[in-house]
Amino acid sequence: MTVKQAMLRDLGSRDFEFIQLVKDIRNELLELGNVSQEKGYECVIMQGSGTFGVESMISSALAKDGHLLVLVNGAYGERICKMAEVHGIKFDALTYDEDKSPSVEELDAFLTSNPTVTHVAVVHCETTTGIFNPIKEYGAVIEKHGKRYMVDAMSSFGAVPVDLAECNIDFLVSSSNKCIEGVPGFSFALVKRDALQECEGRARSLSLDLYAQWKGLENNGQFRFTPPTHSLLAYGQAIKELLEEGGVEARSARYQKNYQTLVDGMRSMGFTEYLPAEKQGYIITTFNHPVSENFDFNTFYSKLNERGFAIYPGKLTKADCFRIGNIGRISTEDVEALLNAIAEAKAEMGF
Amino acid sequence: MTVKQAMLRDLGSRDFEFIQLVKDIRNELLELGNVSQEKGYECVIMQGSGTFGVESMISSALAKDGHLLVLVNGAYGERICKMAEVHGIKFDALTYDEDKSPSVEELDAFLTSNPTVTHVAVVHCETTTGIFNPIKEYGAVIEKHGKRYMVDAMSSFGAVPVDLAECNIDFLVSSSNKCIEGVPGFSFALVKRDALQECEGRARSLSLDLYAQWKGLENNGQFRFTPPTHSLLAYGQAIKELLEEGGVEARSARYQKNYQTLVDGMRSMGFTEYLPAEKQGYIITTFNHPVSENFDFNTFYSKLNERGFAIYPGKLTKADCFRIGNIGRISTEDVEALLNAIAEAKAEMGF
Repeated sequence: MTVKQAMLRDLGSRDFEFIQLVKDIRNELLELGNVSQEKGYECVIMQGSGTFGVESMISSALAKDGHLLVLVNGAYGERICKMAEVHGIKFDALTYDEDKSPSVEELDAFLTSNPTVTHVAVVHCETTTGIFNPIKEYGAVIEKHGKRYMVDAMSSFGAVPVDLAECNIDFLVSSSNKCIEGVPGFSFALVKRDALQECEGRARSLSLDLYAQWKGLENNGQFRFTPPTHSLLAYGQAIKELLEEGGVEARSARYQKNYQTLVDGMRSMGFTEYLPAEKQGYIITTFNHPVSENFDFNTFYSKLNERGFAIYPGKLTKADCFRIGNIGRISTEDVEALLNAIAEAKAEMGF
Repeated sequence: MTVKQAMLRDLGSRDFEFIQLVKDIRNELLELGNVSQEKGYECVIMQGSGTFGVESMISSALAKDGHLLVLVNGAYGERICKMAEVHGIKFDALTYDEDKSPSVEELDAFLTSNPTVTHVAVVHCETTTGIFNPIKEYGAVIEKHGKRYMVDAMSSFGAVPVDLAECNIDFLVSSSNKCIEGVPGFSFALVKRDALQECEGRARSLSLDLYAQWKGLENNGQFRFTPPTHSLLAYGQAIKELLEEGGVEARSARYQKNYQTLVDGMRSMGFTEYLPAEKQGYIITTFNHPVSENFDFNTFYSKLNERGFAIYPGKLTKADCFRIGNIGRISTEDVEALLNAIAEAKAEMGF
């Protein structure tokens, strides 16, 4: 609520206070990625949802003769391919089943036999299943081959510790309304400065030009086009609360506890997870539909919704499942309350 | 404040209540343009600032072999040209001095001698100066030639009465944070349905695909990508308050009174307007710098800012000026308070 209360003001986008707020947010986001301007990294904020940020990265970074390799194991990897297609960017995809991470060895082999590749993109936490992909291992291979490395860290950044330099990440994109617990309205990219400088003149759109957006913010601290001022006010408060909680490590611990409480409770009711436990991240978890004629997802969803909970439908091509997220202002008690609601729904539906 | 208070809630983007809110907003926006779904028009909401909305329109509407004519008399018309350039869209510009509206006769002549033009774009209130361009007169000519007509009504929609059908407008774009007095976060397009249907497969971007965004909203009432939920909550309240005030006509009357109070007060202090009065709109007004060595814009700005007021720097290529906006939650009393602050600054600076 304190985050939303921060929106009860108007700040002009040219006000000194707003410019300072944006500057602070940009620096704090770099710190959350264990880097800084001094270390050669920049933070660029982009209006719109997370997808706008990913498209800004893809459509701004690749040169006309660039060649993108996308590691795909779910809908968000597919979406990056779709973006490359729309923009006429040459791309290849290494595609895997949704319960498997793209192979580090096959990435290595592909880059060896395809030297024209200039950029590699992958989703960190693919929320199609909730799987965590090994971004550090990919980074080592990509560095060896001297390619640019792009990570869609939409649903992981702020709660899964990441060190951009250690992972050799050139571009990382996330958004305002995930693990940092702000409200929707913008995304941001953390970018190695030399990789960002390369983007000059490459953008395929005016609004989503990552380089021009950076230059605008650097020149006078202002956005090129009207920023979502209230979302940024909320974000300043959200970052403050993240730091008060103890930073990324503490948030990671809270979410891991939420996750453990969730799967323990679900298993005790007979639910099973779609992914093997060692692949499953602690952001969002995919559960198989119970094997029962009495189970119907829409009824189940409604019964939980009536009790104040929202879960996600499945997003898999091959298996019937649903997903439960445990990020946001959520404590163990909240997860326990959800488990009680699920137990009630289960009893009422008789599955 | 009631508008901002509407943001003190979280509504999931798949919640029934949110879906209904979005549906209501879309219908109400059509009504503010004197059209409706029944009359063959659609409203599409797009995340990001107003510029994102204009780029969405330009980059989604023109076919590969399309040809755009832009009527230009300021920075926002130039921006549309820039968008066409970035997307490789064939375009021409009829460019005029910033104190003149593009000529209806010259538009007619250009369309006669350039039959390949498919779309014509113009800015309604060009805030570079605050001039109102005659969108109804252009519309009649464009209809005669059978071209598609696009209007950037960013700073006029909601306060300057417009009837899309009467003006023959196919596409009108505006944003959340102007005359409807919401908070920033999205833009919207009001589009003739047959013109929107033509856009299928034409988009040059995934995020800014106006047609796909419409189809997404129509299919299940949801946005394709995370919407700025809190900005939309604020907007629901903002539209309610616009209707309570008496709709577009009443808001127009309040802004006109603000404008008249402003120019009367400024003239009585010796300031002069850049535009002839009959060209000057009642949204934002451009004033010439006083002819005095003691006048300095930054000092003037700071003195007003200290007193709680924000004015705009000039945006003209040829004349030294500044701009004062009088839209938003502003009454005659607020304008009078600003005039007092200006009188004080004038006395202190001695110009």
